This record gives sequence, C-alpha cells and structure tokens, in this order.
Amino acid sequence: MAEFRLIDAIVAVFDQLEAAPAVVLGPGDDAAILRVPAGTEVVASIDTLVAERHFPATALPQQIGYRALMVAASDLAAMAAEPGYATVALTLDTPDREWVCDLAAGIAEAAEVIGLPVVGGNLARGPLALTISVQGYVPVGTALRRDGGRPGDRVLVSGPLGGSAAAVRTGAVAATGASLSPVQRAYFRPLARLDLRTLLRGQASAGLDVSDGLLQDLDHLCRASAVGAEVRRSALPLTAGAQLEDALGASDDYELCFTVPAAVPDAPFLAAGCTVIGELTAALGIRLDGEPVAPETGYDHFVATGAAS
Amino acid sequence: MAEFRLIDAIVAVFDQLEAAPAVVLGPGDDAAILRVPAGTEVVASIDTLVAERHFPATALPQQIGYRALMVAASDLAAMAAEPGYATVALTLDTPDREWVCDLAAGIAEAAEVIGLPVVGGNLARGPLALTISVQGYVPVGTALRRDGGRPGDRVLVSGPLGGSAAAVRTGAVAATGASLSPVQRAYFRPLARLDLRTLLRGQASAGLDVSDGLLQDLDHLCRASAVGAEVRRSALPLTAGAQLEDALGASDDYELCFTVPAAVPDAPFLAAGCTVIGELTAALGIRLDGEPVAPETGYDHFVATGAAS
Repeated sequence: MAEFRLIDAIVAVFDQLEAAPAVVLGPGDDAAILRVPAGTEVVASIDTLVAERHFPATALPQQIGYRALMVAASDLAAMAAEPGYATVALTLDTPDREWVCDLAAGIAEAAEVIGLPVVGGNLARGPLALTISVQGYVPVGTALRRDGGRPGDRVLVSGPLGGSAAAVRTGAVAATGASLSPVQRAYFRPLARLDLRTLLRGQASAGLDVSDGLLQDLDHLCRASAVGAEVRRSALPLTAGAQLEDALGASDDYELCFTVPAAVPDAPFLAAGCTVIGELTAALGIRLDGEPVAPETGYDHFVATGAAS
Repeated sequence: MAEFRLIDAIVAVFDQLEAAPAVVLGPGDDAAILRVPAGTEVVASIDTLVAERHFPATALPQQIGYRALMVAASDLAAMAAEPGYATVALTLDTPDREWVCDLAAGIAEAAEVIGLPVVGGNLARGPLALTISVQGYVPVGTALRRDGGRPGDRVLVSGPLGGSAAAVRTGAVAATGASLSPVQRAYFRPLARLDLRTLLRGQASAGLDVSDGLLQDLDHLCRASAVGAEVRRSALPLTAGAQLEDALGASDDYELCFTVPAAVPDAPFLAAGCTVIGELTAALGIRLDGEPVAPETGYDHFVATGAAS
C-alpha cells in the first residue's frame, strides 16, 4: 500500500487549493469534478518535463515543481484564459516521501500564485518526469489565438527575455539554493502571465508564449497568421545577465509575445510592463533590423543536445 | 525542426476526430478550445503508462496506443460521464516516424470507438511513456462517485475479469500479432465502459473502474462509502483463460464495479451484461463467501515487481 500512503501525503499538500469554489470534488475518486462558468469555452493544454532534459534532477524539488506548474499554465496565459484547474502526473523511480512532498509543495505554491487548483493526479514508477494538464476558461469566442495577426500590428513581449537560456548556458541551473540570481530566477521562478488576460482579450490580435525561443515562437505566430515580422534588436528587453542571443534563441522565459492592431492604444500594455519590439509585415519571414533571419535557432526537442534546456 | 515535422505527422492521424462539433480549435495553437454543454460539470482525470512497467515496449505500437487511451478514458466511464476530450503527452527516445504514427493510430482508433476527440498533446524526448488527460461531462450533480454505497446495495461488475492479469501472468503480453487470444484481448483491447453511462446515472449509488484488482478497488469503494462488502466467488465472471486469483488480485480489466440500491431493479444492468457479485454490508471489510480477505493482494505501483502489469 506504499503507493496509496504516498498519494495521501501528496494530496494533503494540495488540500487548501481544492477548497476553490469551482472544485466540486478533488482527488480521491476516479476523476475530479469541476464547475465550469456559464458562457465560456474551455481551453486545454498538456506539458511534460523530463529530468535532465527539461530540468536538472539535482535541483531543489520545490523549484522543479514550481517551474513545471508555471510552464504548463503559461499555455493558458497564451490563450488569455481564466485559470481553471490542473491535474498532475508524476513518474518517479524512488518514492522518497520528503522529496515528493517538497515537489508537490513547489507545484502548490505556483498554483496558488496564479489561482489554478490542482484537482487530481497520477503516480507511476519510472524515470523521473512530470506531466501537467491545464484547463482554463474564456468567454465564448475570446481566446487569444495565433492566427489573428495582420500586417501593421505591433509586436510586443510581456517582459524581459533570455534569462532562462542564460541560466542554462552558464550552468547556473545546476547548483541552486534559497537565493537566486536573476537568470536562475528566470529559469526556476517563471510567471505564467495570466495577469494580462483581461488586457489581452478583445485587444490583442494574436499571441503565444515564448517557450522555444523568441524567433521560433514569433515564426509560429507569423505562419499561423500568414504574415511576416520586423523586429528591432535594440528594443528587446533582456533579463540582467542575458545576452541578445539568449533571447532570440532557445529562450523559454514564458513571457508572452503578442500583436496589437494599430487601432488599439498600447499605453495599457506599456503600463503593464510590456514592450513593443517590432511590427507584423505583409512580406513573409522574420527580419532583425531589416536582415532576414532563420527561426531554426530556437529550441528543438529532438535536435538539441545537452541536459536541462 | 524535426520535432515540428513529427508533430505534424501525428496531428494528421487525429484529423478526423478533431472534426467533432465540440472542438472549436484542435492542435496547433498553445491550447485547444472546446465547447462545454450547458448545465454540466466537468470530470477530469490523468493517467500515465510507462514502458516495461505498464506495457511491454515490444508490443505493437497500435496496441500500446489503443490500450493507453482506453485505460485513461475508463476513469470517465467510472464517473458515468459523457466523453469530452483528451490530450496526449508522449515521451520517447527515438523519434521513429512510423512507430509514432502507428501509436497515434491506435490512440485514434480507441478514441473513435468511444467518441473522445484527441485535441492536443505534447512531444518530449525521454524514456518511453504516455500520459493521457481526459475530460468528460455530467449533468450537474449526477457524477457516479465512490462514496454513495449503502449497506444492502448489490455489488455488480460490468463484464468478465482477470483476463488482463492472466495475460501478464502467462507472458501472453510479450508476443502479439494481429490475432489476439481472449486474455491478450482483455489486456490490449479493453473497452472503457462509457456505454453504461446513462444506465448508471441516477441509478447506481457508487462505482469505480477495476484498475488495481477487484478486491483492492472494491475496498476503495467500501472505505469511501464507510461500508463493507460480501462477495461470492462463484458469481465472479471470468475471462476465458483467467483464474479466480487473476480477477481478485492485480486485474486491470477496466470493467466497472458499482453498487445499486435495493429499490433499483437490476434487470437493465443484467440485460447490459452486468453481473451481481455480492452486497454491501454494514460490517466493514471485505468477505469472500463469508471469510475476511485482505485487499492488499491488488496492484501497488511501488511494491509490485516485474514488467508490464
């Protein structure tokens, strides 16, 4: 019965979150039961983080858990959704109760920051990995998609980029303690930008989160919208300690990249800490200060090598 | 860009399913968008199957995929839910396009059988594992939970048990071809019993799916309902080729075990192929033909040894 005792200990960590009014029934049955707000659509996404591939297994379990939940929830932010709920599937080789409860505490902390109750999960024995399924809600027809960008729309990012990639590049992800440098913070304590959801809905024309590098993600947006983009290097906001290449390449900062039509004032976005970095163009492809660039410098899960990226 | 080409190939396999009317937006954006029926609650569950632990890696990828989707969806059946949608997270070491597309075809086939569109997913490099998140809908307040059983309720199972455990015990899961024996079929082609949902809602008092062995699962139901149970050995329906111990112990046949109050006629359940195997009792604990038994003979994910169980 080791499995069920461990599950009980994990569930206890999430107890407070399950008190959210939308949660009719939390963990313990075959499935959780949730209330869905009337007049909304559900948005749904799933993400896996594999040890030594997406995080160093030596990191503090709280940090691994915190980051995993934020990474998954970032896809809800990218749709401008209200947070709904999450389920967590954990695979691990050794059922070390303290380590697992610390991991759960990290997940729970992140979940509390963004108001996303963890309502169920699965525990399996195997190589260390975390898969998190997230659901959110949007008023019908208001989800922020990738395909609404038009030539002339401004391109914005929601915060500084490159910190996470710089942390990987410099090895700063390997050894962490309670006190984190700015690049370590970008890696281990990203914030799913759900705080921007009401600002984005009905105002932004397209958007996504920066999870594979700015150039590659912007290319995804441009292809979906059948447009190109012009980006100014000097406009890119960088995390302290990050270089331009960190931001353009394999960055997974989980900031949002979104576009705003000319008719929409950008003052509210600037006031929220967002930055205009360029414009969408009718000409396809991405240009940096007028020069065409290849988006393939971003992160590819099957081509990239090395741990923790 | 190997990752995105492989994702495109996988997404193409699911194309038809995404045409379901509830799917506003399928794969390709940060998240899928779904319509939720008015007046319903969402039920949500997540399951992971790890290679060599939950399935033999040498099995045909179609069979692995088919089983994985059914195993996950069985939790929706256990709540008497309408099928909603699924998201699939796949972790694999070698991005073999043919193998992955065959796996996806198996998932898609199972999804089509039960009407559960696969609307999104994640692809990561790492040890082979599949995590599937499933969501379903129930009219508000009608989900079948574990905690509604009362003394005197009859205990039923929805179909024959033990086939899956017998397939593992006899090594029949290791080598499979297009033609399957009954026990291989129980293992590789389980059916999530969503077909029973309207029969169960408002009629059954409690229920769950048999995923850890009948005794252990019935013990879960009894503990949640604060009752005991009396089961008759001779009443247990067995898969051809299975022994009684296969059914009682580590069986994961994904049939349902549920309870029906005395006031509810059992004829509709019997007509649907269900079998009465015993009754709930005020005395706690589970008894087989009057003899107390320990439920711990079921499957424990951290205590059990050996592959493919």
